[in-house]
Amino acid sequence: MYYIGVDLGGTKIAVGLVTEDGKIIYKESIPTHNERNSDLIIKDIADLCRHIIDINKCSISDIRSIGVGSPGTVDKNNGIIIYANNIHFINTPIADMIREHIDIQVYIENDANCAALAENVAGASMGYADSVTITLGTGVGGGVIINKKILSGAFHGGGELGHHVIVVDGVECTCGRRGCWEAYASATGLIRQTKEAAMNDPDSIIMSLVQGDINRIEAKTVFDAADQNDNTAKKVVDKYIHYVAEGLTNIVNIFEPEIIVIGGGVCAQGEKIVGPIRAKVKELIYGGEFYTQITSAILGNDAGIIGAAMLSRD
Amino acid sequence: MYYIGVDLGGTKIAVGLVTEDGKIIYKESIPTHNERNSDLIIKDIADLCRHIIDINKCSISDIRSIGVGSPGTVDKNNGIIIYANNIHFINTPIADMIREHIDIQVYIENDANCAALAENVAGASMGYADSVTITLGTGVGGGVIINKKILSGAFHGGGELGHHVIVVDGVECTCGRRGCWEAYASATGLIRQTKEAAMNDPDSIIMSLVQGDINRIEAKTVFDAADQNDNTAKKVVDKYIHYVAEGLTNIVNIFEPEIIVIGGGVCAQGEKIVGPIRAKVKELIYGGEFYTQITSAILGNDAGIIGAAMLSRD
Repeated sequence: MYYIGVDLGGTKIAVGLVTEDGKIIYKESIPTHNERNSDLIIKDIADLCRHIIDINKCSISDIRSIGVGSPGTVDKNNGIIIYANNIHFINTPIADMIREHIDIQVYIENDANCAALAENVAGASMGYADSVTITLGTGVGGGVIINKKILSGAFHGGGELGHHVIVVDGVECTCGRRGCWEAYASATGLIRQTKEAAMNDPDSIIMSLVQGDINRIEAKTVFDAADQNDNTAKKVVDKYIHYVAEGLTNIVNIFEPEIIVIGGGVCAQGEKIVGPIRAKVKELIYGGEFYTQITSAILGNDAGIIGAAMLSRD
Repeated sequence: MYYIGVDLGGTKIAVGLVTEDGKIIYKESIPTHNERNSDLIIKDIADLCRHIIDINKCSISDIRSIGVGSPGTVDKNNGIIIYANNIHFINTPIADMIREHIDIQVYIENDANCAALAENVAGASMGYADSVTITLGTGVGGGVIINKKILSGAFHGGGELGHHVIVVDGVECTCGRRGCWEAYASATGLIRQTKEAAMNDPDSIIMSLVQGDINRIEAKTVFDAADQNDNTAKKVVDKYIHYVAEGLTNIVNIFEPEIIVIGGGVCAQGEKIVGPIRAKVKELIYGGEFYTQITSAILGNDAGIIGAAMLSRD
């Protein structure tokens, strides 16, 4: 028996054929063309699912379920995407709409929750009952698993760990609030912090790495400059790690999971960034002692497909 | 069948006989004398339980369980108070120690969690599967109930909502960290904010209410001064409500419970303070729309006894 996982994003739609133990045996992706209406996008998803079934010489009856990981707010009980900004879906009954094209049970879930489920089923938090997965990317995504179940909130809007404020009246966040963890701990936040520092110290290596063009600064730039012993860059990295660790310490104090998994683009740095984050949490936590493990995600971009595929097992 | 609930505090020990539906039919309390060692304190608890059974003409077999709500960190699986600062208990196997005196099953839990359970069984959040209870007192206590179960964390230290930072590098908290919600939203935090404002404006009504003695300022003082239209006091109340609401908005974004119950001394003000808090959360929440109810606790100081009594039903 196989599972199909659909990672629905604003730029591309990635679909994979997944085994019971969460291994992808085939995957393919297509552009979303998110300017189109939902009918066309959903037909593309169904067509790609069917194509993947055919090309792998499977039949419909070999597929246990199709799972879709969607950005935004989803009503998983009714298979509806309530609101997803970057694909312009509003109250879209995606599960029923896919089933009009292909007769397989469809499950949906928020994409950050899918990533958390994937790491729990086949990744870094495998075997743990209580885990939290954080994705430090353009935003900060969070997925909380308590007793092997995704925490969704009573009205489909829970688990938004990126949108807890760590600096009252701080920097404005995309959600409209000021001071969200996402505004400080995302790649976007890091780039802003790097730009500010570079503007204040035009002689820093940060500036030379981007040939003086501040708009070319990426999340990676400041780590590269810090590697070259640039003091300004090292200060930015320290402060960034402090912000990440403050949010993680909050998560330990609130949930105290067995394990926290950190993924996303920023964590391509692996233990080089996770090590200092862990040390900082130890510094911040009450009494300096905590039992929650903090580790890097291991599934990378595949987490979206795997988690979506495993939804029928949640 | 009856249940006994023990609310173990640094100053007093309150014990009550409780019905299946969470009503106290008899209660009595004794001073803790917390300078004594745990043997003596625990013998007093057992003696008071026995006294309450006798005076109510019950026998041991009429009592389903004894529940103890303790400050600090507890290992509820093994009946051990790991660490409770204000009663000087360290790794105290309280359940076994009580059973040496009285042959009834003993359950223990953190006191903030007991308050949450009480409101859920017989109070403001009765009937809801997902609720959060916040106590704004000397500190900020939090109890989270998900799917009718208390969230305890994997290592007995979860649910510490008061110790999530809302102001990175902010005011020092009793836990050693800077900027915890507790440091801003507790009665202690409110008193500090009131004192600062009164010192900056010695002509304010706050000062006249305490006859110019800043050390007589209580949590209530600033509300009384605001009622008399004192501008300085009104600013302190507004800012305090802002701090409370920032933490509550975080809780909505993280857990999205069906209902949040607010109790503790500060909330003796009832809807007069809960109303503005609710309005502020609406202002802070993404899109201005949220479905979580925010309401006042109704059990007051009895919550500790009732929640402890109901532990065997959790």
